[in-house]
Amino acid sequence: MSEGDILEHVGQLLNRWQFSERAKNLQSSIIREILKDSSKPGVINFAGGLPAPELFPIEGIQKACLRVLEKYGPDSLQYSLTTGVPMLKQFIAQRISTIGFDFSPDAIQITQGSQQGLDIIGRVFIQPGSVVLTEEPTYLGALQAFSFYDAHFVSVKTDDSGMLPDDLEYKIREHKPVFIYLVPNFQNPSGITMSKSRREAVVALAKKYDVPIVDDNPYGELRYSGNPVPSLKVMGGEHVIQLGTFSKIISPGLRVGWIAADVEFIGICEKMKQACDLHSTTFTQYVVYEFAKDGALEEHIERIKYAYGRRRDVMINALRKYLDNGSTWTEPEGGLFLWVRLPNGISASKMLPVALKAGLAYVPGKYFFSQRPDDSTLRINFCNATEENIVEGIKRLAKVVKEAD
Amino acid sequence: MSEGDILEHVGQLLNRWQFSERAKNLQSSIIREILKDSSKPGVINFAGGLPAPELFPIEGIQKACLRVLEKYGPDSLQYSLTTGVPMLKQFIAQRISTIGFDFSPDAIQITQGSQQGLDIIGRVFIQPGSVVLTEEPTYLGALQAFSFYDAHFVSVKTDDSGMLPDDLEYKIREHKPVFIYLVPNFQNPSGITMSKSRREAVVALAKKYDVPIVDDNPYGELRYSGNPVPSLKVMGGEHVIQLGTFSKIISPGLRVGWIAADVEFIGICEKMKQACDLHSTTFTQYVVYEFAKDGALEEHIERIKYAYGRRRDVMINALRKYLDNGSTWTEPEGGLFLWVRLPNGISASKMLPVALKAGLAYVPGKYFFSQRPDDSTLRINFCNATEENIVEGIKRLAKVVKEAD
Repeated sequence: MSEGDILEHVGQLLNRWQFSERAKNLQSSIIREILKDSSKPGVINFAGGLPAPELFPIEGIQKACLRVLEKYGPDSLQYSLTTGVPMLKQFIAQRISTIGFDFSPDAIQITQGSQQGLDIIGRVFIQPGSVVLTEEPTYLGALQAFSFYDAHFVSVKTDDSGMLPDDLEYKIREHKPVFIYLVPNFQNPSGITMSKSRREAVVALAKKYDVPIVDDNPYGELRYSGNPVPSLKVMGGEHVIQLGTFSKIISPGLRVGWIAADVEFIGICEKMKQACDLHSTTFTQYVVYEFAKDGALEEHIERIKYAYGRRRDVMINALRKYLDNGSTWTEPEGGLFLWVRLPNGISASKMLPVALKAGLAYVPGKYFFSQRPDDSTLRINFCNATEENIVEGIKRLAKVVKEAD
Repeated sequence: MSEGDILEHVGQLLNRWQFSERAKNLQSSIIREILKDSSKPGVINFAGGLPAPELFPIEGIQKACLRVLEKYGPDSLQYSLTTGVPMLKQFIAQRISTIGFDFSPDAIQITQGSQQGLDIIGRVFIQPGSVVLTEEPTYLGALQAFSFYDAHFVSVKTDDSGMLPDDLEYKIREHKPVFIYLVPNFQNPSGITMSKSRREAVVALAKKYDVPIVDDNPYGELRYSGNPVPSLKVMGGEHVIQLGTFSKIISPGLRVGWIAADVEFIGICEKMKQACDLHSTTFTQYVVYEFAKDGALEEHIERIKYAYGRRRDVMINALRKYLDNGSTWTEPEGGLFLWVRLPNGISASKMLPVALKAGLAYVPGKYFFSQRPDDSTLRINFCNATEENIVEGIKRLAKVVKEAD
């Protein structure tokens, strides 16, 4: 059956059995369609959110697998605690503990990557119609996860330093949100990092109105230049629920992420997690621990940062050199993505089929808006292509933009 | 903080932020409390649902890990398709394809163990108040998963051959259920297997009223005696959604299960899965495939069946010898559990603290009822203790039952 046939049959099935409203609101994922086209031969793929596979620590993981099975044997293959494997929780807690913020392993819930962290947050907070405040633009996977619980999204005005405090305060008072969702470091999709003073202002408002902040932080450790900004979690303490993951600093196929919050809040997450899937994969939790301990993870992160930092520089230099028609872009200090704004009313979504034909894939920015989509924007990943392909890809981008202008 | 302190703080937190109704309906899990006590030294643990760790194929998994990283390298650590790793889906489809039922890999959705299969089924079908028909008793993990979506459970009268067709038909007409939930093979908790004629009757009703059957089948391959009964999935075709898992035939800590249904239905599950956690752990899907292929899984299952079959015989012989006060029990032909009914109004839940003091843990049966709990019943696992401990455990059970009588 073709995809079209399947969709028609799905429609028939939905009319036949009694399904939940969630199931009936199925949409075919635009991004998935783009990714399908982007994997055709000859297409340079800036669309995906994938980290670079050539940097995965294959040998280190291999050794870790052997050590795990030798040292822990059946325990690494058995059912395990819902909150996670204790050694790994201990490791994460120690790692994220900073001066003035002593983190307990009991304040960690292991998740199947950050996406499950988002799903659990949705389960915990969202009733149909509950308001979630987001940045503008914001991470698509979060919109998708929270939509399943019928969240009502309200976006807060955002500039290159993060959310605008005045608009945030107005919207907290107006909408009484269940939480504020932020990607404060090297944001997906925009690449921007929230400044220290904005963090202070947002945390002050979260405290004033007692609204929790969900701090989604998959890229925080991937800084290639500039100065570190204090962690929202450290600044906001109990008001901040932080999501972390090893996906971008080891590998996403291990599916090991975590929620870091207060012990009481983790008690609630644990119940949700139990009904979802009992617990995360025991074996890969052990493997991550055995791979990462004794400083090995830090060494590995340095390798990744070196390669990604170079690729970012190559992309930014190519943009400066070739994209000369009035487009602007962010120049992120870390992470995976940068964000381009096209001039003169060019539509990034209408330009996409032309770009694909020219051998370039990106994601139109409009999908990352919870309200008021801006179709002059697009997201590109600077980490997943070779330096050569980055230059060639930007040349192709410049060409299609010029033609569309 | 003690557990009591934490619970009190959770209560305070629930009154402070805006939580979903789901989160507010938190209950402390009785089973978890029992399991905690059951792990004390000297306690013989018949309570857990754990398979025997000494039978995990450590060496085979070790070799599989090495082969996976050598042969597939970064692909085994990268993001992967939401429905699952294609080779593994192919393997599962071939394995469950039987004469007259040719299963397509596209009709498989990989899940994080069966528990996530249950969660996805809940997401797909259940609106608040949707009726789910269950056996009596039924699997507690399913009650927990479906409760999160506010299912209304109606239990169908069940005897030693499965659901009674007359009562099922009456309840289908009366309640218009969204689906019928069954554990047809060596049921958890009762150990009973649905007879062929009951399967025929239930499938006929599912077809007549066009109600889907959810066939939860974690133990189907663990038959130690008696004759195989035809698969509900083969009999019911598109009306049956089957859940499978490698948890009991390889190891639960790998967290690899699946949903087997029609291609269209899998299309719906895929969307749900994507919002839950993007996809299951890539690495363990590869490891399961590399371990299981070329007949290795079948060989391993024979080893497990031999050991578990012996343990079942030892437990049944001990029950016949020592539990002589009028108690009755099921004598399952496979699976992990058997079900004891106590005489003379003895309460299995009131007896539990006494049993724990005497060094024996079991699960009171009343937690496995969606309606009308029967407190004279209890569930015991015959696979997770040594043959010696099985005999000693049954002696202890006989002693506390006699005292309670």
